[in-house]
Amino acid sequence: MTTDRTTKAGMGPGALIHIGNKTEAPLTLRVIDYNLEKWDERLIHNIDQCRDYNNTDSVTWIDLDGIHDPVLIERIGVQFDIHILVLEDILNSTSRPKVEDFDDYTFVTLKMLDFKGPSGELNAEHFSMLIGKGFLLTFQERPGDDFDEIRERIKASKGRVRGKDSEYLAYLILDVIVDNYIRVSERFLDRIQKLEEIVLKKPNEFTLHSILSLQKELLDFKRSVDPLKEALNTMQLNCNKDNRKYFRDVHDHLVYESENLQIHREMLFNLQNLHHSILSMKSNSTMKVFTIITTIFVPLTFVAGVYGMNFDNMPELRWEYGYYTVLGGMGLLVIGMLIYFRKQKWM
Amino acid sequence: MTTDRTTKAGMGPGALIHIGNKTEAPLTLRVIDYNLEKWDERLIHNIDQCRDYNNTDSVTWIDLDGIHDPVLIERIGVQFDIHILVLEDILNSTSRPKVEDFDDYTFVTLKMLDFKGPSGELNAEHFSMLIGKGFLLTFQERPGDDFDEIRERIKASKGRVRGKDSEYLAYLILDVIVDNYIRVSERFLDRIQKLEEIVLKKPNEFTLHSILSLQKELLDFKRSVDPLKEALNTMQLNCNKDNRKYFRDVHDHLVYESENLQIHREMLFNLQNLHHSILSMKSNSTMKVFTIITTIFVPLTFVAGVYGMNFDNMPELRWEYGYYTVLGGMGLLVIGMLIYFRKQKWM
Amino acid sequence: MTTDRTTKAGMGPGALIHIGNKTEAPLTLRVIDYNLEKWDERLIHNIDQCRDYNNTDSVTWIDLDGIHDPVLIERIGVQFDIHILVLEDILNSTSRPKVEDFDDYTFVTLKMLDFKGPSGELNAEHFSMLIGKGFLLTFQERPGDDFDEIRERIKASKGRVRGKDSEYLAYLILDVIVDNYIRVSERFLDRIQKLEEIVLKKPNEFTLHSILSLQKELLDFKRSVDPLKEALNTMQLNCNKDNRKYFRDVHDHLVYESENLQIHREMLFNLQNLHHSILSMKSNSTMKVFTIITTIFVPLTFVAGVYGMNFDNMPELRWEYGYYTVLGGMGLLVIGMLIYFRKQKWM
Amino acid sequence: MTTDRTTKAGMGPGALIHIGNKTEAPLTLRVIDYNLEKWDERLIHNIDQCRDYNNTDSVTWIDLDGIHDPVLIERIGVQFDIHILVLEDILNSTSRPKVEDFDDYTFVTLKMLDFKGPSGELNAEHFSMLIGKGFLLTFQERPGDDFDEIRERIKASKGRVRGKDSEYLAYLILDVIVDNYIRVSERFLDRIQKLEEIVLKKPNEFTLHSILSLQKELLDFKRSVDPLKEALNTMQLNCNKDNRKYFRDVHDHLVYESENLQIHREMLFNLQNLHHSILSMKSNSTMKVFTIITTIFVPLTFVAGVYGMNFDNMPELRWEYGYYTVLGGMGLLVIGMLIYFRKQKWM
Amino acid sequence: MTTDRTTKAGMGPGALIHIGNKTEAPLTLRVIDYNLEKWDERLIHNIDQCRDYNNTDSVTWIDLDGIHDPVLIERIGVQFDIHILVLEDILNSTSRPKVEDFDDYTFVTLKMLDFKGPSGELNAEHFSMLIGKGFLLTFQERPGDDFDEIRERIKASKGRVRGKDSEYLAYLILDVIVDNYIRVSERFLDRIQKLEEIVLKKPNEFTLHSILSLQKELLDFKRSVDPLKEALNTMQLNCNKDNRKYFRDVHDHLVYESENLQIHREMLFNLQNLHHSILSMKSNSTMKVFTIITTIFVPLTFVAGVYGMNFDNMPELRWEYGYYTVLGGMGLLVIGMLIYFRKQKWM
Repeated sequence: MTTDRTTKAGMGPGALIHIGNKTEAPLTLRVIDYNLEKWDERLIHNIDQCRDYNNTDSVTWIDLDGIHDPVLIERIGVQFDIHILVLEDILNSTSRPKVEDFDDYTFVTLKMLDFKGPSGELNAEHFSMLIGKGFLLTFQERPGDDFDEIRERIKASKGRVRGKDSEYLAYLILDVIVDNYIRVSERFLDRIQKLEEIVLKKPNEFTLHSILSLQKELLDFKRSVDPLKEALNTMQLNCNKDNRKYFRDVHDHLVYESENLQIHREMLFNLQNLHHSILSMKSNSTMKVFTIITTIFVPLTFVAGVYGMNFDNMPELRWEYGYYTVLGGMGLLVIGMLIYFRKQKWM
Repeated sequence: MTTDRTTKAGMGPGALIHIGNKTEAPLTLRVIDYNLEKWDERLIHNIDQCRDYNNTDSVTWIDLDGIHDPVLIERIGVQFDIHILVLEDILNSTSRPKVEDFDDYTFVTLKMLDFKGPSGELNAEHFSMLIGKGFLLTFQERPGDDFDEIRERIKASKGRVRGKDSEYLAYLILDVIVDNYIRVSERFLDRIQKLEEIVLKKPNEFTLHSILSLQKELLDFKRSVDPLKEALNTMQLNCNKDNRKYFRDVHDHLVYESENLQIHREMLFNLQNLHHSILSMKSNSTMKVFTIITTIFVPLTFVAGVYGMNFDNMPELRWEYGYYTVLGGMGLLVIGMLIYFRKQKWM
Repeated sequence: MTTDRTTKAGMGPGALIHIGNKTEAPLTLRVIDYNLEKWDERLIHNIDQCRDYNNTDSVTWIDLDGIHDPVLIERIGVQFDIHILVLEDILNSTSRPKVEDFDDYTFVTLKMLDFKGPSGELNAEHFSMLIGKGFLLTFQERPGDDFDEIRERIKASKGRVRGKDSEYLAYLILDVIVDNYIRVSERFLDRIQKLEEIVLKKPNEFTLHSILSLQKELLDFKRSVDPLKEALNTMQLNCNKDNRKYFRDVHDHLVYESENLQIHREMLFNLQNLHHSILSMKSNSTMKVFTIITTIFVPLTFVAGVYGMNFDNMPELRWEYGYYTVLGGMGLLVIGMLIYFRKQKWM
Repeated sequence: MTTDRTTKAGMGPGALIHIGNKTEAPLTLRVIDYNLEKWDERLIHNIDQCRDYNNTDSVTWIDLDGIHDPVLIERIGVQFDIHILVLEDILNSTSRPKVEDFDDYTFVTLKMLDFKGPSGELNAEHFSMLIGKGFLLTFQERPGDDFDEIRERIKASKGRVRGKDSEYLAYLILDVIVDNYIRVSERFLDRIQKLEEIVLKKPNEFTLHSILSLQKELLDFKRSVDPLKEALNTMQLNCNKDNRKYFRDVHDHLVYESENLQIHREMLFNLQNLHHSILSMKSNSTMKVFTIITTIFVPLTFVAGVYGMNFDNMPELRWEYGYYTVLGGMGLLVIGMLIYFRKQKWM
Repeated sequence: MTTDRTTKAGMGPGALIHIGNKTEAPLTLRVIDYNLEKWDERLIHNIDQCRDYNNTDSVTWIDLDGIHDPVLIERIGVQFDIHILVLEDILNSTSRPKVEDFDDYTFVTLKMLDFKGPSGELNAEHFSMLIGKGFLLTFQERPGDDFDEIRERIKASKGRVRGKDSEYLAYLILDVIVDNYIRVSERFLDRIQKLEEIVLKKPNEFTLHSILSLQKELLDFKRSVDPLKEALNTMQLNCNKDNRKYFRDVHDHLVYESENLQIHREMLFNLQNLHHSILSMKSNSTMKVFTIITTIFVPLTFVAGVYGMNFDNMPELRWEYGYYTVLGGMGLLVIGMLIYFRKQKWM
């Protein structure tokens, strides 16, 4: 079941409601708490338990898998003093990627992208993140993510993460997400190149459908990438000086993908033109063959028709070898036409 | 009856005149006055009655349904000390969406959009709003709006509205209007997707008309959305700090719709190309079938013509089974041509 | 007679010369002088008479109809201490719309647009305006303008004009000119919609010419509107604070027209595509009919050819009802082909 | 002989080399020295002679015709203390139009454009200018220019030039060059309009070549105009306050040409579409005529074939007026088809 | 073997890994150390040896050929205190051209471009550069570069280089690289012009492939040039005042190439349209010839068919010269049709 924006429209602000695909999956709330000295990870069932982690020296990462329970989101909102509009954006899986600075926290929302299933459709998962002093809240639509490597690094105290703040943790997460965009982009390139081969070798009616659907998926990708690019630029300007380099790096990757995207769109546009031209050339050249066949037989048929006339006085008809002469003449005519056509480059 | 801009052009500023569709509907003037303690709502018939609500602690929302009476608008103008150019914009249903800051008030004008009637044409209603200290004036072309839920919330003291200023009330109204844009946008998407199906399955002459008219409606939509986006950005920068988050939120929604609009326009453009390609492919493939039929019969007819010649000396004509031999030869020729054509992928 | 820019090119600055259509019309120099107390209007023949109006409290509007006399322009230049480059722009009817601030005055040059004659070609008249302290100089190419209403208002002391400065008078004039742009724009829309009807109903070769010439007129319109938009924005920023609202209003109207222009251009572009598609569809469907006729008769002709062969042994020829059988067979063949073609949606 | 950029690439900075067409024309070095009181003009052969003119009150204009001698350029560089990169730009006829401010001088490089020869190809001549305090160096590729009028004005002390500084002299030169751009632009417009006539009246294969080559020339023109526009904007901001009006005027002309250029490009693009449409319409309508001829004779031929069959029992063949009846029937068939085709608007 | 970005994605920052083509080529580390007095050049095998050159008055240029050894890169990183993200960019041959300012050094990464092999494919080599106080690190993918001339100049103390800082050395290198872009650009122009000739003379199916592949290579070129243009602009603003002129010069060259690139892309786009138009015109004119042949014979065949009818009473058949009359009539018909067709400009 899906609640769409239309239902939401007209409800006024302040009425928290989930917009997106409903799932029956149970929600899980996982807390990781760490600093240079200690590390703790557990699943909790009551948001009040978070209170223990609040206001401590450590960085607390609270990760909620499943955003279809407005009541829970609201209670988290109360617990962390989150603005009502932010809660709405967390619950609204159609909201636009953005970064917003509030007094006590920075809010980030974006799409996690990958290709799902064997047919490989582009799949966008709504992801939100609240970066506060000493805590990081992340909200995903579905369980399962690509952050296990980060969790592992924290646990094993690999790299710098244990000695850094929650903003650095946010960077690690953004980096993983944006790296996935690269995979998506490369997959698009693969598909465009496959289409190119098809167009050059054996274009057909379905190629057009594929081009159209790829164009639409690229538009979807664009809708995720372009606003985020802008948003991360803001992030990079407002974050702690220590972390600026990192966010600038993520921003650079995104700019790179955005340029690639533009290039892919252009390639697809060129491909569409090429497809049209090749199909029309093929069609023309086939028609030409048929037309040549007709054109060659039309004069022959005329000659046969002449000698099929019933005039009393047609001397050729009486010649001993009239029939063979005419057949021979026809043969010469065909040869002459073929030579002439070829000389004129008409065939 | 309609007074259009052309009539107005040349009349000079200062001559208040209504530009737009005339209606016979009676004007209603509804006043809602509230603060944290009290609430009052009534219909009034004389603009002087507003004076009682002026200069009090409470927020006064004066809502005029029907803008076709310049005299009334002028009296409101005098009452609230409104600039003559603002009054002109209120009366002019063709004016461009904008936000203007004056010393004592902020003026907002925009279009309320929905789809009207069974055929579902895009319908734009001119809407103006004057946000002053302690009062909010709204002007609509026709009675009936989507603000009842807001009125209900004020009455029932639901949410924060009773404790907020008139700017917050303006936000609530803008939020409802912009949420309607989302519905409009989704309706456009529906129609594009239906057209896509038609183009892929059975494109015809009328599909082009539909694409053209959808393109024109999207241009109309764009004319409402894009200037407003710009205007709300100004609003967000100039409003009270407390309300900034809210206006930023509305602005974000509008940016989102503006991006969608751009994507819809692009989808429609792609669709138009696709339609052209598919129709031309269909037409070509039909013509090819007819041409193949002709091409196959032309050599056969020639052969028949040869044996219809009247030469005295044509030995084949005398053969016992000459006729059947020729018929058989023709059959082989047809089969040969079909095999060859298919091998060459010409059919 | 026309002096074009090419003649002017190479003459160096400082050589005042009129560029544009020459007219034999006599020049008229009309002076209106007013303030709250007094009003005076007269035609003068000697620019020196202006001196009386200079340096007084009143606003002096000097309106020159006809700019083809460089000597007069130069003398006005001396009288009012106008920069040589400004005088060149006044005389040059090909100069670009712009607003320039000088120490003692603001110079505005633009095009007055309307449709002229029964065929309704877009007609641009060069108009310049010098706004100084207490005076306003206006320069038109031809006698006759749309400012009579303004003159009437000044004379009758209607509205605020008598109590305002020369900048406000300039605003009134700009407002009239820009309002005319709206009429021009609506006339364009009319013509586009008429073309649309023609394209949808009975497109022909001449439709393309009309589209092309409309495209060119829109480009001319754009050349007048877009630089002026930019220029009026500067004007609005630099004018007296009191008049800012008014110039902002004119600027808004111009932005609106500029957007409309863009939309009209896009509509025309879409229309061109539509025209191409519809013509090609019509042409294809006509050709298909002819091809179907041929395709149906080709097999029939073949059958007739077969029974026109002269073989001695063709038993069917001897059958009593052979002829009728064959005719019937041909009829069945036609019906079969028609049914098959229709089933395949080929016709 | 031409030295192109490729040869230069890889030589490192500091190696002065001429890039462009070599000419055997002798170099001339002309010096004009003037102020309000005095005037002097002579051809010099040794750059050292310039020293006499340096560091005086007067304005010294040194004009070098021919830039293919790097040694001379280098010596001028030493004499006037010019940066090595500037010398490179002077020698490099492929360098991009620009204005650069150095401590002691301003460097301007651009293209002088005109149409050369009877066929009228666009011809670009590399021109550089160094504006220093009290001196102006100009470098042209070939002898012969459009500056004689300026030299005449200086000599005759016409206009303000004798009382102004070297920057004003630079303005006079730029004004002449940019005025030439206007001629070029008008010539382009002429050619586009001629092409338009051809396309509307008798389009042919060569029209496409003309459109393509005009497109390429417009691209070349754009390459000269657009960077210069930007550069002169900088110039206008950095020049002496007295001369600002003049440079702003030149800049305005250039903006005007840049807009015209854009409009010409668009006209050409529209023309290309029109050409394609008209040719395809013509081709279609010719093919239709041929197809109609065939379509009319095919049924007639069939009827003739029927009565050419050899069935024993064909009563019509025995009728006295069978032949005439059939001929009449054929005539009626033709008339019927023609009427029907015309009624269906197929012809 | 290639490690692509996809493999890297998900590994988290801090894990140094080479992304790009693996080569077996041994790495070489060449050190050039110089100032006005001394010069030294040697190949070193241990990065620790660099320490001797550090912190001296001289400029040290350390040039690493081969970036496929993360361990070595990491040790260099430690030695020179380089940020981990910079090391990643050095190792990642897919990273986007950029300039980044760090506290102690400026990091530049870009692509060196040339055409490789006889078929002349565009080849991009990843190049990074670290400009520090007194040292310059450069990283190339493969041995062999165009910097030998620079090394020679340093050794021979030609030009200013020995008296300048490491930033000037960086400029020399950038200048060589950007000069190569010019060669690449000219090569592209050559190929476009060759394609143009082919299109105008004998367009065929493969021309489309060439256009498509050239479009793709131009997109690749654009991907290298456009970000670098932006990056060098930053560089020019942040570098030492003395070197600003030099970097501005390189930036200008790049802007020039970027404009050329845009023009080449447009030329290619125009060419594609031209190709389509010419092919379609050719195809149409060939088809017209065939159709004319058919159209001429169809009425003749009809006439022959008429006189092949078997009516008893066909007086013409009995005429002495009936046969010759008919043949003559046919001849006249052909001549008449040819004259008429030509008069109508149908052939």
